[in-house]
Amino acid sequence: MTGLKTMLNPSATAVVGVSTSNPFSPGNVIFRKLRFENALPTYPINPKGGVVEGVPVCKSITEAPDGIELAVISVPAKYVPGVLRECGEKGIHSVVVVSGGFSEVGATGASLQSEIVEIAEEFGITMVGPNCIGVFVPDVLDTFFLPSERVARPRRGNVAIISQSGGWLIERLEEFAQRDVGIAAAISIGNAAQTKVHDFIRHFGSERKVDVILAYIEGFGEGEGRRFVETCKEIAPKKPVVVLKGGESEAGHRATQSHTSSLAGNQVVAEAAFRQFGVIQAVDEDEVMAYAKAFSFKPKPMKGPRVGTLTVSGGHGVIASDEASHYGLVFPGFSREQQETMREVMTPAYQGIASFRNPCDLTGSASDVDYERVLDKMLEFENIDAALLLLLPYAPGISLQIGARVANVAKTHQKTVVSYVPDLEKYEVIIRGFEINGIPVGDTIEEAVQMLNGIRRRSKYLQRIGVV
Amino acid sequence: MTGLKTMLNPSATAVVGVSTSNPFSPGNVIFRKLRFENALPTYPINPKGGVVEGVPVCKSITEAPDGIELAVISVPAKYVPGVLRECGEKGIHSVVVVSGGFSEVGATGASLQSEIVEIAEEFGITMVGPNCIGVFVPDVLDTFFLPSERVARPRRGNVAIISQSGGWLIERLEEFAQRDVGIAAAISIGNAAQTKVHDFIRHFGSERKVDVILAYIEGFGEGEGRRFVETCKEIAPKKPVVVLKGGESEAGHRATQSHTSSLAGNQVVAEAAFRQFGVIQAVDEDEVMAYAKAFSFKPKPMKGPRVGTLTVSGGHGVIASDEASHYGLVFPGFSREQQETMREVMTPAYQGIASFRNPCDLTGSASDVDYERVLDKMLEFENIDAALLLLLPYAPGISLQIGARVANVAKTHQKTVVSYVPDLEKYEVIIRGFEINGIPVGDTIEEAVQMLNGIRRRSKYLQRIGVV
Repeated sequence: MTGLKTMLNPSATAVVGVSTSNPFSPGNVIFRKLRFENALPTYPINPKGGVVEGVPVCKSITEAPDGIELAVISVPAKYVPGVLRECGEKGIHSVVVVSGGFSEVGATGASLQSEIVEIAEEFGITMVGPNCIGVFVPDVLDTFFLPSERVARPRRGNVAIISQSGGWLIERLEEFAQRDVGIAAAISIGNAAQTKVHDFIRHFGSERKVDVILAYIEGFGEGEGRRFVETCKEIAPKKPVVVLKGGESEAGHRATQSHTSSLAGNQVVAEAAFRQFGVIQAVDEDEVMAYAKAFSFKPKPMKGPRVGTLTVSGGHGVIASDEASHYGLVFPGFSREQQETMREVMTPAYQGIASFRNPCDLTGSASDVDYERVLDKMLEFENIDAALLLLLPYAPGISLQIGARVANVAKTHQKTVVSYVPDLEKYEVIIRGFEINGIPVGDTIEEAVQMLNGIRRRSKYLQRIGVV
Repeated sequence: MTGLKTMLNPSATAVVGVSTSNPFSPGNVIFRKLRFENALPTYPINPKGGVVEGVPVCKSITEAPDGIELAVISVPAKYVPGVLRECGEKGIHSVVVVSGGFSEVGATGASLQSEIVEIAEEFGITMVGPNCIGVFVPDVLDTFFLPSERVARPRRGNVAIISQSGGWLIERLEEFAQRDVGIAAAISIGNAAQTKVHDFIRHFGSERKVDVILAYIEGFGEGEGRRFVETCKEIAPKKPVVVLKGGESEAGHRATQSHTSSLAGNQVVAEAAFRQFGVIQAVDEDEVMAYAKAFSFKPKPMKGPRVGTLTVSGGHGVIASDEASHYGLVFPGFSREQQETMREVMTPAYQGIASFRNPCDLTGSASDVDYERVLDKMLEFENIDAALLLLLPYAPGISLQIGARVANVAKTHQKTVVSYVPDLEKYEVIIRGFEINGIPVGDTIEEAVQMLNGIRRRSKYLQRIGVV
């Protein structure tokens, strides 16, 4: 799959299937993005010739200039084999087929799909699709056929996303953009006729700038599950692989078959294999975001499940306790001596109303400095492996600097710390203060607890295979 | 509890515990809100007299003018009994005690708390608190002691919220404001020394403008659980009561005790009682929002668990199927005849690529009119009880009018319809189009499914007691 590297960073591209009459056709949307947003040399192709956006249209790939490294194909299914063959003859080794009308529509489409795989193999072409939305690498290329104003595009970062569903991928991009989590690439694999999820996992496994690999999978084709697991076995020791599997219920399974006609496979077997080989399986989109975001911070390992919790609201401590216990995380009770160690560093006026049993409720009277000092003491306790900060910044004594202040205390210790702050514009300074100093912030208490759970699951796996 | 009506709509108020030296003291924050934001006649009280914000300070409740209907008390705990007695003698029947230092800090505090309950009872005072954040009624009054810029305040609406945790309440206000769900009132009951959750449930049960009652409960005092259940038995047939219970895990239970020193009680018994008497129990904050928002639309009942689903992305159908099956909702397969009925009304060019098995995937090529027509047909099928619209508006053929267009089709049918659209500013026109026309919009697929689940649970209860 040497073609993947060029596919995600081509020096010149072609879009086959632009229209001279409909500026909103998928081909035209892709052409405009590659040519004007990504500023890549991009050749529009249509047998009728003409001019698109002031650029002369080439009549075929064959007639196009040399040097094209990626061709995006957006023509009716029946023309795809011919175009693909031309690409092969032209020496283009990376192709994205966005056209639909293949295995997802029945037997005729399926045979067309086999045909294009054969052609790709014959010419050594690495092909993504068909029936996919495209590939997107921030600041490099965007072959999504959706108008720019309809799709959020997150900043450049270290999470690579691979999805069997275009809709799911678009949604993640919206969410990553909104939460300001950067991505390294987003890949819609569609029917995955040739290039599979595991090919991309292997590829991103050796990309230096990728720290987290995230995949949405509906099912595996024949023999594909085994190769997927083998790939994870190889990659997971190096970087976290987070997977969400759709189609697990009976109804979901039926929906899967109309969708990408993939086999949902034996769920129980898959889950066991995932666990054994270090794949972090998420149960829903919330866990997906929690795990992806937490790992994107390259968190310190969590040697055990014991968490010390600081809060400014007793109710939050209660909710976090319930969540933590759902995930098998433990809030160990603190000894009288430990409690006094923390109480002593609090502002004297509030020592009497604060509670230090874990969760430690510093109350709405606590200020930045109370938070800093108590955390500093708590992170030294031998009976905790991580700290959870529940920081609803409504307390008048808490300033917008608290994120940076507390994060700088956390830096001086060797334990994982995660925080909760609601994702509101008015708290942006706090959230940024935490995050630029290395502490991931969940936008709900549940998310912060899930982050710890993800970190703990990965640490446990790395402990088991002897890496940490 | 006649005092509740005046408490939530007083003609004049007093704030006991303003400071002439510290403008940020809780008393001053409350005073400024009541006097200047709510424009209520409000008297500041401090034994030292002086002037606050240009207003002369009264030396005591006794010396204050007559006509005060609500007193908010924010003085150290030991002074509260004296102030409360003065309120009683002055004929003030509604009091909110925000001061802490009562049962939550141990035995001395607990005895002080018994004392203030006795005084309240002696004088016929309805008291909320102590150790609470206050009460808030949009456009009427706000006794929260938190600076205005720290707390979001949702628009006026029909959801009443009662919470045993101030932090939890503040968070819900942020969330309701962000999602544009209106509230009728928000009550922080703190230690609930005298006025309990069930008193407010009964009160809001007969308030015409309240359509949904939402409560966060950590535990019940002695005998209180029974009264809670009896109240719900009376109110739930009239309007939905949604409850989230904190402190369910062992750790959560310990946290609860440090927090409001209430008894978490026997969870299993509580859940069974909730079910029997029509309380909709939420398992987490996501379900809380889904249920509260869905019920705020006064949805049509859902006679059974069968849901017809329309989507523009196969992956979304798969995810919704998995979620629905988790909640016991069913996506019945559609007969060949039903499928053809829907296919016929689609734009001819896309009839071949759309799938109608349920979930029905109209594909990214579908336009507003396809969505309208297919929904119109589907809502007539006898084998579905509700419709779920998964509408990621990335498809180029979908316009910003789709919300209103589809909602207007739904209006002509007798079945519940809920939709999913990501909660992004660029989709606001779509979301508003749905919502002003009576269709609640979930901001995740999961939330839309949870909405249906809440509606189904309530319908089932109303069927059981013979109301529908």
